[in-house]
Amino acid sequence: MLEELKQQVLEANLALPRHGLVVFTWGNVSAVDREQGLIVIKPSGVSYEAMKREDMVVVDLHSGEVREGNMRPSSDTDTHRALYLAWPEVGSIVHTHSRHATIWAQAGREIPAWGTTHADDFYGAIPCSRQMTPEEIGSRYEWETGQVIIETFREKDLDPLAVPAVLVNSHGPFCWGKTPEKAVHSAVVLEEVAYMGIYSQLLTPSLPAIQQPLLDCHYLRKHGSNAWYGQIK
Amino acid sequence: MLEELKQQVLEANLALPRHGLVVFTWGNVSAVDREQGLIVIKPSGVSYEAMKREDMVVVDLHSGEVREGNMRPSSDTDTHRALYLAWPEVGSIVHTHSRHATIWAQAGREIPAWGTTHADDFYGAIPCSRQMTPEEIGSRYEWETGQVIIETFREKDLDPLAVPAVLVNSHGPFCWGKTPEKAVHSAVVLEEVAYMGIYSQLLTPSLPAIQQPLLDCHYLRKHGSNAWYGQIK
Amino acid sequence: MLEELKQQVLEANLALPRHGLVVFTWGNVSAVDREQGLIVIKPSGVSYEAMKREDMVVVDLHSGEVREGNMRPSSDTDTHRALYLAWPEVGSIVHTHSRHATIWAQAGREIPAWGTTHADDFYGAIPCSRQMTPEEIGSRYEWETGQVIIETFREKDLDPLAVPAVLVNSHGPFCWGKTPEKAVHSAVVLEEVAYMGIYSQLLTPSLPAIQQPLLDCHYLRKHGSNAWYGQIK
Amino acid sequence: MLEELKQQVLEANLALPRHGLVVFTWGNVSAVDREQGLIVIKPSGVSYEAMKREDMVVVDLHSGEVREGNMRPSSDTDTHRALYLAWPEVGSIVHTHSRHATIWAQAGREIPAWGTTHADDFYGAIPCSRQMTPEEIGSRYEWETGQVIIETFREKDLDPLAVPAVLVNSHGPFCWGKTPEKAVHSAVVLEEVAYMGIYSQLLTPSLPAIQQPLLDCHYLRKHGSNAWYGQIK
Repeated sequence: MLEELKQQVLEANLALPRHGLVVFTWGNVSAVDREQGLIVIKPSGVSYEAMKREDMVVVDLHSGEVREGNMRPSSDTDTHRALYLAWPEVGSIVHTHSRHATIWAQAGREIPAWGTTHADDFYGAIPCSRQMTPEEIGSRYEWETGQVIIETFREKDLDPLAVPAVLVNSHGPFCWGKTPEKAVHSAVVLEEVAYMGIYSQLLTPSLPAIQQPLLDCHYLRKHGSNAWYGQIK
Repeated sequence: MLEELKQQVLEANLALPRHGLVVFTWGNVSAVDREQGLIVIKPSGVSYEAMKREDMVVVDLHSGEVREGNMRPSSDTDTHRALYLAWPEVGSIVHTHSRHATIWAQAGREIPAWGTTHADDFYGAIPCSRQMTPEEIGSRYEWETGQVIIETFREKDLDPLAVPAVLVNSHGPFCWGKTPEKAVHSAVVLEEVAYMGIYSQLLTPSLPAIQQPLLDCHYLRKHGSNAWYGQIK
Repeated sequence: MLEELKQQVLEANLALPRHGLVVFTWGNVSAVDREQGLIVIKPSGVSYEAMKREDMVVVDLHSGEVREGNMRPSSDTDTHRALYLAWPEVGSIVHTHSRHATIWAQAGREIPAWGTTHADDFYGAIPCSRQMTPEEIGSRYEWETGQVIIETFREKDLDPLAVPAVLVNSHGPFCWGKTPEKAVHSAVVLEEVAYMGIYSQLLTPSLPAIQQPLLDCHYLRKHGSNAWYGQIK
Repeated sequence: MLEELKQQVLEANLALPRHGLVVFTWGNVSAVDREQGLIVIKPSGVSYEAMKREDMVVVDLHSGEVREGNMRPSSDTDTHRALYLAWPEVGSIVHTHSRHATIWAQAGREIPAWGTTHADDFYGAIPCSRQMTPEEIGSRYEWETGQVIIETFREKDLDPLAVPAVLVNSHGPFCWGKTPEKAVHSAVVLEEVAYMGIYSQLLTPSLPAIQQPLLDCHYLRKHGSNAWYGQIK
C-alpha cells in the first residue's frame, strides 16, 4: 500500500537528522495521496536509526483512522491532516524542533525577509501564529494547532506554497511543499534564515526587510512560470 | 557484582560525548541499586575512549565506601549519594558541564519554561541553586553540593521527577531519571532548552513563560498515567 | 578544453561544503583563462555530491556565451564575468551564503579589521556594497551585482587583491584570489572573521579597528614582496 | 635529535584541529628541552594533514637559530622563546586563533573566572595584554609579543602555571603547561570558558566573579600538593 510514497516519507524523515534538524525523535514527515485520501506518516516516538519503510503508518486523510501499520502514527498527525484538508496544493509536511526556528517560535516573532537566502524560497516574512487559547489546547489540541496555522495564513492573506513554513507560537516550525523533498528543503532553509536573522538583528537592531524588488527578483527566478534557476528552464 | 547495572552506566557515560555534552572527562553517570544499597559510578578522571564496564566503581550508598573496583570513583560521588538518599524515586544521575546549561548556572539563573520542547520533559522552570557558603564549600564540598540541590527543590516545592534537572550556581547541571537512559535524556533536553532559551530571551527580552495550559498539555501527554505519546500507552 | 582549470574549479567547489560554507547548492567557484578569454564555472543548481569535472561549464569571458558543457552555468555567471573584466589581476571567484558573512551582508555593514586573523589576509575592513536600485535589479540583475561591487571598491579606493572579498548588501559574500585555492582561502577566512566580529562587538560595543601598525605588520608579513611567513621566502 | 620530544610536539599539534581549535595552519605547539637549551616547534605554514615528526624544527632556545630541520620554524618562534626564557617552569607552549578566545582578545578584555569549569584549571581571570606600541610592532614583533605577555603577568603578579594562558590584545591566545599534553589541555579549556563567558555575561550583564572559596576549592582539588581529583593522588 503506497510503497513508493512510504519510501519517500522514510527518506525525508531520515534527512532530518542528517541536516541537524532533530534530536531524538523530535520531528516527523508525512505525505498525502490525494486520490486515495490517505496520508503516510512517521510512527510516534520511534528512533531514526531503527526506522524502516514498513514502519510508516497509513492514515485516512478525512477520518484520521489508521488504515495500515502496526505502530501508532505521530502524535502530530491531526495537525498534518488539518493542513492537508485546508490546503489542497500541499503534498508533504515536516515538523521539527530545529533550534533556531524554534527560538523564533518561542519568542513569538515572525522572521522578516532579511536577505536573498530567504527570498530564494520564501516570498515574505515567515509568520508566527498567535498563542492558542485554553479551550483550543484543552479540546483537540493537535487538530486545533492546525486550525491556528490556517487562521494565520488566512488573516495575513498568505499563499502556503509561496511561504512554505510557519512558526507555531511557543512550540516550533511546521514546513511543507509539493513533495517530501521540497518540504525538507523548506525546513532546512527556514533553519538557515532563522539562524542568520537572530544575528542580523543583533548587528542592526532596526533592520528593515529586504527591498521589494529584490524579494521579487530572487523569489521569481526560482519559482513560478518564469523561473530561470537550475538545469530545468 | 551488578554487571547489568554497570553496563547501563557505562553506556550512559559513553552517550555523553556522543551527544556533545562533555569535553575530556567532564561528566559522570551513576545508577543506584536500592535493594542492595549500592551505587555504580564512573571512575574519576578516566577518558571516555578507554572506559570499560569493569572500570565502573561500586560504592556503598549509605557510607560512601568503595565496595568493588580498582579505581577511585568520580569526585562528585558524594553529590550523587546525597541526591539518592533524599529522593527515593531517582534511579540514575548525570553530571556534565554541557556548554549552555553551564552558562545559565554561571549566570546564576533558572531556565524558564519557554516552549513545548521544555514542557515535553520538564514541568516548569529548571531551577538554579543559591550560591554555597564558605562553610559549605570548606567542609564536605561535594556532599554539601547535594544538600543545596535538595534545599532548592524543597524550598520551591518541586517534584524531582517532574523537573529532572538542576543548575548548581557557578558550576553546572545535574540531571536525573528513573534509569540511566532517562537521566541522559534529561541532560540532552536540558542542553537544548538552555541553548534556545539564551536566544529566545535575546529576541524578546521580557518573554513570559509558556501559558500554563500548554505546559500541562505537553508535559502530561508524555508523562503520568494518562500519557499518550509514543508506542506504549 | 581547459581540463586542468576545470579540475581546479571542481576541487575548489568541493572544498566549500568541506569547510562548512554551503548548504545544498548555494555556492559557486569559477576561474578564468585570460589568454583564451574563457571562464570555467560550476553548473547551476547541481549537487556537490554528484558534481564531476566534465560538468564544469566553459563560458566566454566577453560575451557570456557557453562554449562547452551540457549544463547551464551558475546563475551568478554574469557577476563573475563583470568582476573578471574589471579586475585583470583576479584569477578565481567564489560566491557563498556562508552564515556569518551573510549575516553582515544582511545587516548592511562592513566588517572592521578587528584582529590579526583579519589582518593576515585582508588589508582593512571588508566592505559592504550599497543596496541596489530597482532599475539595477530589474534589468541585468547579476551583471549589475558585479557593477555595484566594482563601484564599492572604486569609491573606497580599494585594491581587490589586498581586500579579496565583499559583502553584497542583503545578499552575501563574493571572494576572490589569483587562484581557485586562494579564492576559497579568502572565503574561509572571511567566515572566521565574520563570526568573531559579531561577538567581539558584543563584548566591546564601540570597538575601534586594530591599530594601523599591527594591520601593516600582519598583512605585509604574509603578502607582498617582503613576505616572510611560510616555507617560501 | 630529540625524537621523543618531536613526537610529543607532533601529537600536540595534531590535537589542535581534532579539538576544533585551528583553521588551516593557524596554530603551533612547541616544547623545550631545558638541559640541552633546545626548542622543538612546528614548521611555518605547513598543513596538519601532511605534518610528520621529522618536519618538527629544532631551534636554539637562546640564539633562536635553527639547529635541525629542513623547514623554517613557526613565525611565532620568538614569542615561544621569550616565554621559555622568562618562565623556567613552562615546558610547552600552544598558540591558536581559536574562535572564542580570539574574540575576547579582539575585544581587549580578560576572561573573568565565572564558574568551576574555569576554576578547575585557571586560578583566576585569564588576562588580556595591553596593545603593543608602534615601536614594539616595528622592531622585533614576535619577540616583543612575548615581552608584553611577560609584562602582563609581572604587573598582575600572576604565576604562569596557575594561570596557564593569556590573550594577546587584538591577536589571540597563547597557552602553556609543563608538557605538550597539558598545554593543549589549557587551550581546550580556555576555548570552553571563552565560549561560556560570552553568554554568561549576556544573561547576567554585571556578573561578579566566582566566590573566592569556590575558586580555591576547585583549583586546589586538581592542582598542588593536596590535589585529590583523578586516579593519581
